[in-house]
Amino acid sequence: MPAAYTWSSTDPSLSAAALDHPSQQHLDVERLFELLTRFGRHGALPEGGITRLAASEADGAARREFAELLRAAGATTGVDAVGNVHGRFVLAGPDAPWILCGSHLDSQPGAGELDGTYGVLAGLCAAESMMKAHRAGACFAANLCVVDWCNEEGARFRPSMLGSAVHMGKLTAEQALGSTDDEGVRLGDALERIGFRGGCAPPADARAYLELHIEQGPVLDAARERLGVVTRHWGAIKRRLVYVGAQAHTGPTPMAERRDALVAASRVVVALRDLADELARPDAPLHTSVGRLLVEPNSPNTVASRAELSVELRSPDPITLSHADTALQEIAADAARRANVELLTAPAEVRPARPLSRRASFWVRSAAIRLGQQLRSMDTVAGHDALNFIGRCDVGLIFVPSIRGVSHHPDETTAPADLALGLRVLADVLWTACHEPPPPA
Amino acid sequence: MPAAYTWSSTDPSLSAAALDHPSQQHLDVERLFELLTRFGRHGALPEGGITRLAASEADGAARREFAELLRAAGATTGVDAVGNVHGRFVLAGPDAPWILCGSHLDSQPGAGELDGTYGVLAGLCAAESMMKAHRAGACFAANLCVVDWCNEEGARFRPSMLGSAVHMGKLTAEQALGSTDDEGVRLGDALERIGFRGGCAPPADARAYLELHIEQGPVLDAARERLGVVTRHWGAIKRRLVYVGAQAHTGPTPMAERRDALVAASRVVVALRDLADELARPDAPLHTSVGRLLVEPNSPNTVASRAELSVELRSPDPITLSHADTALQEIAADAARRANVELLTAPAEVRPARPLSRRASFWVRSAAIRLGQQLRSMDTVAGHDALNFIGRCDVGLIFVPSIRGVSHHPDETTAPADLALGLRVLADVLWTACHEPPPPA
Repeated sequence: MPAAYTWSSTDPSLSAAALDHPSQQHLDVERLFELLTRFGRHGALPEGGITRLAASEADGAARREFAELLRAAGATTGVDAVGNVHGRFVLAGPDAPWILCGSHLDSQPGAGELDGTYGVLAGLCAAESMMKAHRAGACFAANLCVVDWCNEEGARFRPSMLGSAVHMGKLTAEQALGSTDDEGVRLGDALERIGFRGGCAPPADARAYLELHIEQGPVLDAARERLGVVTRHWGAIKRRLVYVGAQAHTGPTPMAERRDALVAASRVVVALRDLADELARPDAPLHTSVGRLLVEPNSPNTVASRAELSVELRSPDPITLSHADTALQEIAADAARRANVELLTAPAEVRPARPLSRRASFWVRSAAIRLGQQLRSMDTVAGHDALNFIGRCDVGLIFVPSIRGVSHHPDETTAPADLALGLRVLADVLWTACHEPPPPA
Repeated sequence: MPAAYTWSSTDPSLSAAALDHPSQQHLDVERLFELLTRFGRHGALPEGGITRLAASEADGAARREFAELLRAAGATTGVDAVGNVHGRFVLAGPDAPWILCGSHLDSQPGAGELDGTYGVLAGLCAAESMMKAHRAGACFAANLCVVDWCNEEGARFRPSMLGSAVHMGKLTAEQALGSTDDEGVRLGDALERIGFRGGCAPPADARAYLELHIEQGPVLDAARERLGVVTRHWGAIKRRLVYVGAQAHTGPTPMAERRDALVAASRVVVALRDLADELARPDAPLHTSVGRLLVEPNSPNTVASRAELSVELRSPDPITLSHADTALQEIAADAARRANVELLTAPAEVRPARPLSRRASFWVRSAAIRLGQQLRSMDTVAGHDALNFIGRCDVGLIFVPSIRGVSHHPDETTAPADLALGLRVLADVLWTACHEPPPPA
């Protein structure tokens, strides 16, 4: 059952003058809610929320609907080698520079309907309004391309933010396509099956990348604020640890002779949770987690021979993050020794904390001022496709509040008025980005 | 690839006189190895060992072959409501009492080929030899029924030792048939699918139950002994604990707000492992284990909302076992409090330590003496179908060594000479049991 959005078109915080900007003229905010409700059906769960894993049937259906909407709005659509779906809206001519706007349609298992879907559909609504303005005679300095990036969540295929990483050359298409899910299905085959393996990439060397997203944390909601611009992302280190012990009968096998992979893995989960309290300081928080643990053979009467953990460490402070990673490696090795099991490690996924581009933040701030809204400069703890563009072009990441900070849960939601406001800001920022003169040569 | 048994028919420890007993006259020991090799094909894994989960296709194939062999040997076969397969060998007439001999053809995932299969096939070989003796004119005081009990392992359906529990009235057929595997398949439907849901039960009120099994522990092998008779089984308490937390994003969700079911479950795994060292005394050992842990949604970026553990505690000492269970409940509740998650518990499966019948042990001792063999009186730590018969009839459980104690692992094995010796002892014991005069009224 997709959520029904009870939405009022009048937001008392928005003056008539605020809506006078040309970016707001053709914007159909109601359409966003209609689209959110429609997309909430793809992968809908009977108990509420969605499960729309990357390259699943439900994801395929959402992608097909997205591509049709892009074409109906006047875009030329394409799918690249790793399943990124995009629509090119030519506003300034074939030789003009490109502005990218995107997010992702895939979800975690048992997730809410907003997450990446909100940003993709808001991008589409903003593009539709700009095409209308273009047809009504407005001039632009750049074209706009709206993208659904493949496998942002990392729930089915690893790594997360996979499609945007390939687009930015941080991962090869071969590596991405060879990634397998828990059933051993390759991403390449899964994309083939849903008909989304193509050969047409989104524009390279875009001048800017913009993304609108729900916060997925409690900061804006707790402060009763409605808008955030991300000025820094936390650093993250993600490690996959595998313990290999030996199957044995849980009854007669003497305790001292057991080589229990699950005991080793559990020591890591516990020590890592306690590490977050030990290392964190008010100015340098540390988030640790193990979200995924696979146990083999996972039978009540058999000592586990294999346990695989997906570990995450996150902090805005590089020193805290590095201390945590050192501690993790000691914890992991100690757990292996104590349980007399082997520890296999893969290279870590390391994402150092970095600031986002000041120019794009300034666009967001200008939009907030025009719309008469307060704007909080804030961190993102979660990864987003936007992070793959940092250092390569202007990157703007806009947040609206998540009620009580709930995310990756069917109860994840945002007040409709805030969803509408986020779209208005995105439309303003994209308008500005598509009107910026080229930088001096 | 089933194991090839390199077997020599001459065992220097067996004198000609030892083999003169009528129970050994028609015994074809070589047939046991031929049958073990044949049954090793059902569920064989490319890397060695077998996966023959209860009521799977492979289990169905093994059951069909077993039933054909029973009929070929002159038995009347039947399958009861919960899939126990048996063959009645009428040696003393339709009104004579019954002796039961059995074990199980199901296996753990990635198991060895012997485990329960050895006892079932040895029972078949012994029955064949007794039918030959019967046809050659030997007289018996009781009939023999050989049984393959359904789902002894508890790997696919819970509880373990399910088929024999239903036969002895400790579980209703409805409870057993309603048990579901991890895919939600009911045992009743799985049995239907392989064609093993019947209506003909093994004889009720048997006078004795005999079972031959590999030890699955290191005691006999370490002592370089070849035969054991079980005089006591350890007590066992099995609990299923379920933690219910809340899905959340592993990034932005503040550590203090997380309700992580996996952290709670891991605290139990760790504390329980340490408890075994804390509570055990040389005269009162304690084995603890968590072999099975299911995590939901089990995605790297999402805090686990549900974790289900299968916990086992085993000790020969009732006080140690009871202390361990009290400690487990405190550990489980404390883990729930610390992780701010809910703890759901189901009624525990409790099996108090008990002695086995002296009369059946005496039969085994007599057989060992006749065959010129040393015999160790020992405990069983593992559960066996035999335990469901304690207190209801004479129960004899015979052990042969497991090399290095390895079990529930593809490397599980026993020296062929010991497998042959075990069969000879079983044949002697069954001969005695089927010749005992009825007890005085």
